[in-house]
Parts: sequence; C-alpha cells; structure tokens
Amino acid sequence: MSAPIYTRIALIGLGLIASSMAHAIRRGGLAGEITGYARSAETRETARRINLCDRVCDTAAEAVQDADLVVLCVPVGAMDAVMADIAPVLKPGATVSDVGSVKRHVIDVVQPHIPEGVHFVPAHPLAGTEHSGPEAGFAELYDNRWCLLVPVEGSDRAPVDRLRQLWEGMGANVDEMDADHHDLVLAVTSHAPHLIAYTMVGVADDLRRVTDSEVIKYSAAGFRDFTRIAASDPTMWRDVFLTNKDATLEILGRFTEELFALQRAIRTGDGEHLHQYFTRTRAIRRGIIEAGQDTAAPNFGRETTS
Amino acid sequence: MSAPIYTRIALIGLGLIASSMAHAIRRGGLAGEITGYARSAETRETARRINLCDRVCDTAAEAVQDADLVVLCVPVGAMDAVMADIAPVLKPGATVSDVGSVKRHVIDVVQPHIPEGVHFVPAHPLAGTEHSGPEAGFAELYDNRWCLLVPVEGSDRAPVDRLRQLWEGMGANVDEMDADHHDLVLAVTSHAPHLIAYTMVGVADDLRRVTDSEVIKYSAAGFRDFTRIAASDPTMWRDVFLTNKDATLEILGRFTEELFALQRAIRTGDGEHLHQYFTRTRAIRRGIIEAGQDTAAPNFGRETTS
Ligand SMILES: NC(=O)c1ccc[n+]([C@@H]2O[C@H](COP(=O)([O-])OP(=O)(O)OC[C@H]3O[C@@H](n4cnc5c(N)ncnc54)[C@H](OP(=O)(O)O)[C@@H]3O)[C@@H](O)[C@H]2O)c1
Ligand SMILES: NC(=O)c1ccc[n+]([C@@H]2O[C@H](COP(=O)([O-])OP(=O)(O)OC[C@H]3O[C@@H](n4cnc5c(N)ncnc54)[C@H](OP(=O)(O)O)[C@@H]3O)[C@@H](O)[C@H]2O)c1
Repeated sequence: MSAPIYTRIALIGLGLIASSMAHAIRRGGLAGEITGYARSAETRETARRINLCDRVCDTAAEAVQDADLVVLCVPVGAMDAVMADIAPVLKPGATVSDVGSVKRHVIDVVQPHIPEGVHFVPAHPLAGTEHSGPEAGFAELYDNRWCLLVPVEGSDRAPVDRLRQLWEGMGANVDEMDADHHDLVLAVTSHAPHLIAYTMVGVADDLRRVTDSEVIKYSAAGFRDFTRIAASDPTMWRDVFLTNKDATLEILGRFTEELFALQRAIRTGDGEHLHQYFTRTRAIRRGIIEAGQDTAAPNFGRETTS
Repeated sequence: MSAPIYTRIALIGLGLIASSMAHAIRRGGLAGEITGYARSAETRETARRINLCDRVCDTAAEAVQDADLVVLCVPVGAMDAVMADIAPVLKPGATVSDVGSVKRHVIDVVQPHIPEGVHFVPAHPLAGTEHSGPEAGFAELYDNRWCLLVPVEGSDRAPVDRLRQLWEGMGANVDEMDADHHDLVLAVTSHAPHLIAYTMVGVADDLRRVTDSEVIKYSAAGFRDFTRIAASDPTMWRDVFLTNKDATLEILGRFTEELFALQRAIRTGDGEHLHQYFTRTRAIRRGIIEAGQDTAAPNFGRETTS
C-alpha cells in the first residue's frame, strides 16, 4: 500500500458507483479518510451500518468540509442542485469531480458553481451493474475497466493527473476525451442500446398473446440480456436520456433507418442482404474479444438462443 | 446409467447443436450408437478426429440407415432438401425430429416427405452460444434449459414421450407447444432481439465519427451484450428471419411503435413517461431471476455500463 493520494475524499451520493469507489479506495489505501453523504436518512443509515465510509455525514456541507477531493455520485439530473449546495464550503485548492454518464450537460451545470481556486475534473467510469444503492458496491467493479476523464478547457494538469492516479489505484485504465465526443461514443456504446433494450422488454410485456410467464420462462438470450439491461435504475437512465438528448436521438435515428432496411429485406425475402449484414457485425465481436473487453469462452448456454 | 432410449441415433448436420447432443447423449448413455453426417468433407473430418460420433458417414443415407431416431440439425432453410434426401431410406417405425429455431416452416417442408409408418416430432432446444461447428459443442449445453416439443396434429403419443425422455436425459426441461404459438413466443424472446442487436452493431460499425477502435475499446454493456448476440451464425439467422417472417415483422412493428413513443418523450423532455416505462420493465427482470433463468449475482462489471 502506497501513500494516500488524497487526504480526504468526500463522496456525495452513496449508491452503486460511490460505494464501489469507497471499497476500492480502501483496498488501495488511496485516501487518508473517506466521508460520505446521501440524500435520504435511510441510505445514510445503511452506509453507517455497513461501515461504508469513515464518516457518514448528515449534510453535504459537512462531508465536503476540508476534503481535497469531492466526487459527485448522484444522477446526472441532480448534479446542479447538489453542486449549488456544496460550492460555498469547498476548500481552496480542492478538486471537484463526478461520475455522471453524460459529460457535456454535467460540465454545463457544474462549472458555473466552481469557486475560484477550486479545480473541476469531470470523469466517467465505464463500469456498473443493474443494481443500485450503498450495498450494491464491490471493490473489484473498476478493475480493468475504463475510466474516461473529460478535462474542461484551460484546466491545470496537476489535478487531472492526480485524479488519474486515483482511478488507476482503483484498478481502472484511464483515458482522456473531449466532452462532446464522449457523449457521442457513449450514445453508441451504451445509451442507445439501453433504450433499445428497455423498448424490447416493454413490447414483450405488452403482448397479451404471449403471457408474461412464457416470456419469462422461455426467455432466451438475447432477450435475457435485454432484461438485465432494462432492469437498470429508472432515475439514472431518465436523466441520461434527457441530458444526452441530441446524440441519443441521432443514433436512434440511424438505428431505425437500418432496422427498416433489414425489415424490408425480411419482407421481400432478400436473404443475401441479411447474410451480408450479419457477416459484417461478426467482425466487431472479434475485435472486442481481441481487445480483452470480453471472453470467447462459452458460458453454458447463457449466451445465445434461438 | 440407464438403458439406452434409442438403439441408434443419427445426427444430420454436425454443428453446435448436434455436437452438444452427441456429448450429452454419451454422457447419459442414451443411445446404443450415434451416427453422424455433415455436408462438407471438412466437418466430417473434424468430427472423426475428435471422435464426436461412433460413426461419421459420407452420405446422409448411410447415417440414417437403421436409425430409430434421426435428428435434423441443419439450418432451417436446409431442412427440406436434407429431408428429401433421407426420406427413402428411413426405417419403418423410426422417428424423425429436428432442432430448428422456427417450427411452422419446418413442419410445412418436412412433413410432406415423411413416409407412412415413420413418426415426425419437431423440437427446439432453447440453448445455444454464438459459436458454430462440430468443435463448439459441450455436454452441459442443455442442462436445465428448456426444450420445446411441437407435435404435429394427429401424431402418436409414444414417439413424443420417447423423445421427451431423450431430451430430459440430456438435462433439459421439456414442454409442449403449438407451432404457431412457438414461432410467436420465439419472435418475442429471441428472433426480434437478435435482429435488433444485429442492427445496433451495424449502426456502430457505420458511424465513422466514432472509430471502430473506440466502439470496441469503450464497448460498455449493453453494447457488449449486443455484439455477442450479433456474432451468431449468419446463415442460421438469415434462415430464421426468412422462415419466421410474419411473427418477426409483427414484433418489430410493435417495437418501432414503442421506440418512437420513447424517442418523442426524449425529444419533448417527458421524464415522467421515461421513468414509468423503465420502472415497468424492471419487474420482468425480477420474474426471470425468480424463475431461475438467470442469476442476480454481480459479475464484476460485465453487465451494465453507462
Ligand atoms: N450504475 C451504472 O451503471 C453507472 C455507471 C457509470 C456511471 N454512473 C453514474 O453514476 C451516478 C450514480 O449512479 P449509481 O448507479 O451509483 O446510482 P444509485 O445507486 O441509484 O445511487 C444514487 C445516489 O444518488 C442519490 N440521489 C439520487 N437522487 C438525488 C437527488 N435528486 N439529490 C441528491 N441525491 C440524490 C441517492 O440518494 P438516496 O440513496 O438517498 O436516494 C443515492 O445515494 C449517476 O450519475 C450515473 O449516471 C452509473
Ligand atoms: N446456435 C443456436 O444458438 C441454436 C439454438 C437452438 C436451435 N438452433 C438450430 O439448430 C440448427 C443447427 O444450428 P447450429 O448452431 O448447430 O449450426 P452450425 O453449428 O452452423 O452447424 C450447422 C450444420 O448444418 C450443416 N449445413 C449447413 N447448411 C447446410 C445445407 N444447406 N445442407 C446440408 N447441411 C448444411 C453444416 O454442415 P457443414 O459443417 O458441412 O457446413 C453443419 O454441420 C439450426 O436449425 C438452428 O436454427 C440453433
């Protein structure tokens, strides 16, 4: 265990992402002290009971007091209000960061609150599960996953490099990216796929000729994969779609265009078109396995079914 | 190990499904002898090298000779020709079955070839992976998965019950269903989700502003799940969509309707609509976990990411 990277880290919001950070920070000895705050008394109670932080505070201001790093771990739509709340008590020289799944919007609402002499380094760890809350976290969540730092224009290098060290200490690989590009990449790799999965699961639920119990009983993969994705937190995802509106809608527009072309191929019996399309998409999967982002090992029929 | 259920089982086609059957049949001692046939000399060579069957034959007719069960394990679009080929040599009293992912079409093309005195019991194991070929199989593929039997009208009970015993011996749970209902249920739980996953991966591949390497590198789940689904065999899936056209197009029609409603909610900022929709889809996931079709255990960030 090396010397702590920050003397005091304050986690604002104590859900899956924050609780996994707390575990990973402790595992790595990366902070002298971790303080935490959550909106509801219930979450604070749970966090105390499981000893998630060194101190769970009853106000955000108290948690932020004297912290050299404050990480906003609340839904994207709550960042503005939370930041307004803590801005007056931030320690000079401190760094504010966040973990929001959308970056342009977070920068737009948080940046104006940042006091002179305080640094702001937005971040987004590409790791999660469909579970929420302070008990959902585990130290390994970020191991070997990417964390994207999205430094705002004109910011100092030192606080960026220090935050990078923290994420690397939590097991992540770190890259830097521009906010708009981040939002477009994530719209493709995460936001649009989530909306599509939500939609497909909703359709299944609607179809009265296929009973829910049949859908559940015979839920083959892909559908089983879709249901897992569609079990993610409704508040978090509502905020993601509302705040990454343009990129998400653009990708969904292209998606429906392509889907229509494939539907037409099915309708007209154009097997050649379908076969070519499916052959092309296979290559991307190979790339992902080669990039070490997933494994090719069979997992006993949990994967594909027809 | 109990007495074999069939004296000789012939597997026509030696891909993932057939090779997993061969392993599972041997594990359970369910057949006196397994013969096999595949179209290409290469597949037959591989099957011989790995000792997949007791005998790998150079013609389908030879493999089928004296078999009391013949299982068609080829893509749905190839069933007609394969069946025409073997019909003249089927043993009186034998049972023909198949494993095709679509049932109405298979019944329509296979049934007319079935000789007097031969039974036909269509089946569909709801298990698979995205891998293909004789080396992709493993004995556990069907353990605790469903196999749907789709008896044709007026067929004898005895051959249906015997085939059920075989699938149960291979580890599967067996249910019976009518062909049209099967095709609709599978369109919801598997065929439409596959087309959607193929489409989304194709869109990602098209988008030149997001380079392939970024899509691959930062491929978060859901996208990673989509790529796995979209790596499935192009020929098999082309045939599924062309032969389960009506049900698939119906579900896709409903899907695009719902997707448009969600897109409008995003565009107009209707957070309430999104939140309600996402809350409803969560319940289905719970049902699947309770039904034992998947696990709630976190698997270290492989699941959801935003
Ligand atoms: N889950 C993922 O897969 C994932 C991955 C990467 C990034 N992210 C991002 O990480 C952030 C947190 O997500 P999470 O998964 O940790 O969520 P979570 O488990 O649902 O926890 C959210 C936390 O935020 C608090 N909160 C919610 N609404 C609030 C509001 N209006 N004002 C103040 N506090 C509020 C909650 O407090 P109470 O408990 O008191 O309600 C809770 O402590 C989000 O911005 C999300 O976009 C999530
Ligand atoms: N994979 C799944 O997830 C899954 C799940 C349930 C049911 N099924 C169904 O199971 C069946 C087989 O799928 P699979 O995954 O085992 O496929 P696979 O691994 O690709 O194997 C297909 C086999 O069929 C042979 N074949 C292909 N086209 C043929 C043709 N035109 N004429 C004669 N033989 C031909 C192939 O011979 P060569 O090797 O010589 O080319 C190969 O032996 C399909 O009907 C599929 O719908 C698949």
